[in-house]
Amino acid sequence: MATLFNFMSDNAAAPCPEVLAAITAAAPAQAAGYDGDDWSRQLDALFGTLCGRPCAVLPVSTGTAANALALATLVPPWGAIACHSEAHVQVDECGAPEFFTGGAKLLLCPGGDGKLTSAGLDAALASHRGDVHQVQMAALTLTQATECGTVYTPAEVAALAAHARAKGWRLHMDGARFANAVAHLGCAPASLTADLDALSFGCIKNGGLGAEAIVLFDLALADQLRWRRKRAGQMPSKGRFNAAQIIAMVEDDVWLRNARTANAGAQALARAAAGRLMYPVQANEVFVQLAPGEPQRLRDAGFLFYDWGDAGSNQARLVVSWDTPAEGIEALARALAAG
Amino acid sequence: MATLFNFMSDNAAAPCPEVLAAITAAAPAQAAGYDGDDWSRQLDALFGTLCGRPCAVLPVSTGTAANALALATLVPPWGAIACHSEAHVQVDECGAPEFFTGGAKLLLCPGGDGKLTSAGLDAALASHRGDVHQVQMAALTLTQATECGTVYTPAEVAALAAHARAKGWRLHMDGARFANAVAHLGCAPASLTADLDALSFGCIKNGGLGAEAIVLFDLALADQLRWRRKRAGQMPSKGRFNAAQIIAMVEDDVWLRNARTANAGAQALARAAAGRLMYPVQANEVFVQLAPGEPQRLRDAGFLFYDWGDAGSNQARLVVSWDTPAEGIEALARALAAG
Amino acid sequence: MATLFNFMSDNAAAPCPEVLAAITAAAPAQAAGYDGDDWSRQLDALFGTLCGRPCAVLPVSTGTAANALALATLVPPWGAIACHSEAHVQVDECGAPEFFTGGAKLLLCPGGDGKLTSAGLDAALASHRGDVHQVQMAALTLTQATECGTVYTPAEVAALAAHARAKGWRLHMDGARFANAVAHLGCAPASLTADLDALSFGCIKNGGLGAEAIVLFDLALADQLRWRRKRAGQMPSKGRFNAAQIIAMVEDDVWLRNARTANAGAQALARAAAGRLMYPVQANEVFVQLAPGEPQRLRDAGFLFYDWGDAGSNQARLVVSWDTPAEGIEALARALAAG
Amino acid sequence: MATLFNFMSDNAAAPCPEVLAAITAAAPAQAAGYDGDDWSRQLDALFGTLCGRPCAVLPVSTGTAANALALATLVPPWGAIACHSEAHVQVDECGAPEFFTGGAKLLLCPGGDGKLTSAGLDAALASHRGDVHQVQMAALTLTQATECGTVYTPAEVAALAAHARAKGWRLHMDGARFANAVAHLGCAPASLTADLDALSFGCIKNGGLGAEAIVLFDLALADQLRWRRKRAGQMPSKGRFNAAQIIAMVEDDVWLRNARTANAGAQALARAAAGRLMYPVQANEVFVQLAPGEPQRLRDAGFLFYDWGDAGSNQARLVVSWDTPAEGIEALARALAAG
Repeated sequence: MATLFNFMSDNAAAPCPEVLAAITAAAPAQAAGYDGDDWSRQLDALFGTLCGRPCAVLPVSTGTAANALALATLVPPWGAIACHSEAHVQVDECGAPEFFTGGAKLLLCPGGDGKLTSAGLDAALASHRGDVHQVQMAALTLTQATECGTVYTPAEVAALAAHARAKGWRLHMDGARFANAVAHLGCAPASLTADLDALSFGCIKNGGLGAEAIVLFDLALADQLRWRRKRAGQMPSKGRFNAAQIIAMVEDDVWLRNARTANAGAQALARAAAGRLMYPVQANEVFVQLAPGEPQRLRDAGFLFYDWGDAGSNQARLVVSWDTPAEGIEALARALAAG
Repeated sequence: MATLFNFMSDNAAAPCPEVLAAITAAAPAQAAGYDGDDWSRQLDALFGTLCGRPCAVLPVSTGTAANALALATLVPPWGAIACHSEAHVQVDECGAPEFFTGGAKLLLCPGGDGKLTSAGLDAALASHRGDVHQVQMAALTLTQATECGTVYTPAEVAALAAHARAKGWRLHMDGARFANAVAHLGCAPASLTADLDALSFGCIKNGGLGAEAIVLFDLALADQLRWRRKRAGQMPSKGRFNAAQIIAMVEDDVWLRNARTANAGAQALARAAAGRLMYPVQANEVFVQLAPGEPQRLRDAGFLFYDWGDAGSNQARLVVSWDTPAEGIEALARALAAG
Repeated sequence: MATLFNFMSDNAAAPCPEVLAAITAAAPAQAAGYDGDDWSRQLDALFGTLCGRPCAVLPVSTGTAANALALATLVPPWGAIACHSEAHVQVDECGAPEFFTGGAKLLLCPGGDGKLTSAGLDAALASHRGDVHQVQMAALTLTQATECGTVYTPAEVAALAAHARAKGWRLHMDGARFANAVAHLGCAPASLTADLDALSFGCIKNGGLGAEAIVLFDLALADQLRWRRKRAGQMPSKGRFNAAQIIAMVEDDVWLRNARTANAGAQALARAAAGRLMYPVQANEVFVQLAPGEPQRLRDAGFLFYDWGDAGSNQARLVVSWDTPAEGIEALARALAAG
Repeated sequence: MATLFNFMSDNAAAPCPEVLAAITAAAPAQAAGYDGDDWSRQLDALFGTLCGRPCAVLPVSTGTAANALALATLVPPWGAIACHSEAHVQVDECGAPEFFTGGAKLLLCPGGDGKLTSAGLDAALASHRGDVHQVQMAALTLTQATECGTVYTPAEVAALAAHARAKGWRLHMDGARFANAVAHLGCAPASLTADLDALSFGCIKNGGLGAEAIVLFDLALADQLRWRRKRAGQMPSKGRFNAAQIIAMVEDDVWLRNARTANAGAQALARAAAGRLMYPVQANEVFVQLAPGEPQRLRDAGFLFYDWGDAGSNQARLVVSWDTPAEGIEALARALAAG
């Protein structure tokens, strides 16, 4: 049987050595619980430097928790959150945003290549009146990189932020693959976060083990987020292990190195599948229109991946991780090039 | 200045004499509180006869409360409810379904003339996987008559009910204008309710004063609904006045008489606007594509109504109530016929 | 068989003539829905005059809804609300405060004669740390008149308000029997409301039919309350009938007249039961320590009432309404005096 | 300065070597996400053997999440949960049970030495009527070991379970220190879990790093718990690391070894403080009535601990962990013996 190469999700990746080493290093000693430890105390400053402005950083155990807690802190129960129709918050979180917010509503907006635009928001929300009979528009959430493996440029984020600001909306970014976006853009993180109220900074898909960071820029909401996090069962007693993971990812740019590796693998696949890519390949996901029969041939050859789109559409999602073996990428590239 | 004729909403109508008389008749004596009175005790039997099967009937103070409590009784917090994109539960209840259910999600399905179809549901929900990462499909809610003033036939309801049953979904009907639908169809109410788990039986738009009825057909859920209703602040101490209103509406077919009157008025308008109706006129709402300038001319002539559709589209919603003055209907019909 | 005289609850009372007349008077004409009518628009000014400062008044259909919506507007989901151990919000609302607030916690405080004191609050809450692991103290709610039929004086309310203010708590008053308290005190309503953030102004027990008023003094929260009320299914389309009831109660001091009548009846019973009253009789409730066998003798004589306290304790709660027949009060007084 | 010895909380302890080794061992390879890995799949069988009956085991990131998710699965939003007045769910979880259940209410019951009894429950709940105006009694939750460092015997658990069963209540056990209880009793775990609907099996305080296990015995609720967990942000993509920790704790009885070590340390302190212990010392917590001035002397000597009880009461809580240095225990024992 062929060796199996896993392109199903970056969730399947191993934690990277730096993250494991950080956990091990934090282990031997006793330490104060509940964010009172030395690691947890570093986080605000670490991300303050990274993002170029003050922030409160609170680790949580999953991306779903990060998104839902951040949104609950930004919008009231009667609020509405504009998001892309295919956003993770809508289609992959089992209603976590509704649960954490106390019943806010996601208003779904289409957008090519997984990306929202101001014009698209205007069109999708045109019929939303906002009178007392309706939920009140309260926030916009962007996914960076998007569900289609594309990346908002700093200018695109700024334009959407200006749109949100003009409307009085809060701005959240689901950065489960924020690292891949920054690695693609080669920009300063701050150029993407300057207008955010909160960022879900993803680690787990990018070589982390079990911690994501909520980066809250509106410090007036920090206490509220702390209470929400505690009552959500997301305040770990031995929080130093989450903080240590996050520090290990950010220090020495491990997060960018991992993301660059994954992005490069995706580019290799993209080159091999040129001409039948569904979206521009800008992060670590490659969406390919395969030929009839090709999905099965690829699977027979040992490549694991998810079908995409409608049943029978022969579309594939191929995700590259920081630790996807080079030989796997090369083998898949060859197979794709062979068509 | 011209006399004003109000076609904005049947919500503006007066309560009908029978309803007022019932309140007055229930007033003089003391009576046991909290559904222990003689009026409240009649409701189950009254609707059991009307719908041809056992049911538990619980009055509430608004249609929003009826819908949200019924849905919360039928679906779990992690449930999904399929509804028409323009359904009242989605666009006019300020998130009440999300609040009462504890965060369930409405999945929006399009449908011509405001009506859902099995094929339309299949198409709209095709991408809903239903794995653990997603909310779980739990119910279908139909609006009868629809937001477009159209009416599901008994066969259409039965087909959608069979669809729901095959999927394991609960079935709810938002019957804010159920009376108008039955009056239009001339059918037995039971032919529309045979497959329902719960019906929001509307009175207020149809000559009621301040009570709607939740008619629950799954009696195993009745206690749950009672607790939910109490904790929602919808269990009035002097419930006899709500029950008396509802009884007055149903006894002697007042509800059907009122609805027939309103429907007939809508038909008069429809005849006058033939050729520019946006949807078939089957209940008491008429949607008309007006000409440029015509909305203002109508308003100048004393007719009050809501614009519909996109700004500048010159579309109008005209709602006739049980008590809309005949001269108002005639005048508006003449104005519409004049174009 | 003896005539039955009902001392079970003021909930059993009929609506008073003024309230019925107001409903009838509001009925004949069409009127704008959803608080757009002439009656609803009067409420803010009416209570502004009554309470001597600006307020936003929103009718709801039950006292439970009034309390729960008011508290939800004042405290966050992670908040704690100090209340008397026997408060209606704790023991008679099926968890409505928890539901509407999104999970806030009631912290129960004892207090003689149903009344809280600053010292009692301090003692009961001494072990509440308020760190991030605990719900955060956010409000105090007082019941006026209390569950024991006693009344806070203006000085007592002021002292508790000062206590709350010093702690940074919001202050709510459950005034289901506010009228009875004011009638007892003979004070200006404003002397009890000067420090409140919100008052649940009760009408129903006092001759109303189906409307209570939330009187919100912190106007910065008014929009929030409007959205919460709508999404709770408590914004009626024909709101004029609720507003008209409330206006009828307040205009011409009907509320005080009704309350004085009920209070006077209670005083008659209190005189008859002097020496075995459980609490001072200050409103329209009388709690009596009966002798063994006496509860049954009273019931055999046609008096309906609730047992109180532990089973077998021979304690009775006797509630007098605005419309309790004078002969019933006299008869019960004679029976009580006979022992 | 003196060496500091930390008796504040077992939360401050390091993860034990076996747990760290298990994380490291699970790290290098890619693995299927979301409970699809080999470690997660072992959990049901592992605990099935441990507890002697089938169960579904779902790791979560904190004890608060374990308790709140378990309770939310067992009780409806209108439910009531009987618990000890000092239970962690009441005083240390910032309202998580209320949040996760959608507003259920904790009914507080006193009990000597931190332990509930059937008679105590009956007394505390005697005034709970359970009619439609009240939350409905739905579950009992026990803390094992208790907040006072005492342990329910299997017979005591069985008696409370029989009480709960007779009332129709669900039974949950908060086993944050379940290991310490079993180690103290020397019994089979099954003798404590035979009657439970759900157990929060604690690892973190006992040498774990960041995973607790919800052990659900009512398998009919397992899917519901899975959806609740996902929507609570408690379903980690790299769940193998949580599962591996839990396996490492249970395999080879590491959990019992760690607990025995901690318990033994507590016994050493108990012997030294004999005569001034506040409660029997049965787990790893020691509550001591110190003399005036003694708390400060102990702190000056390098011992860290929490004050207990009212301010100025000179009561101390001393918690021993699996890794509390022997010299620290000996030193504190000497200091306590010296008085």
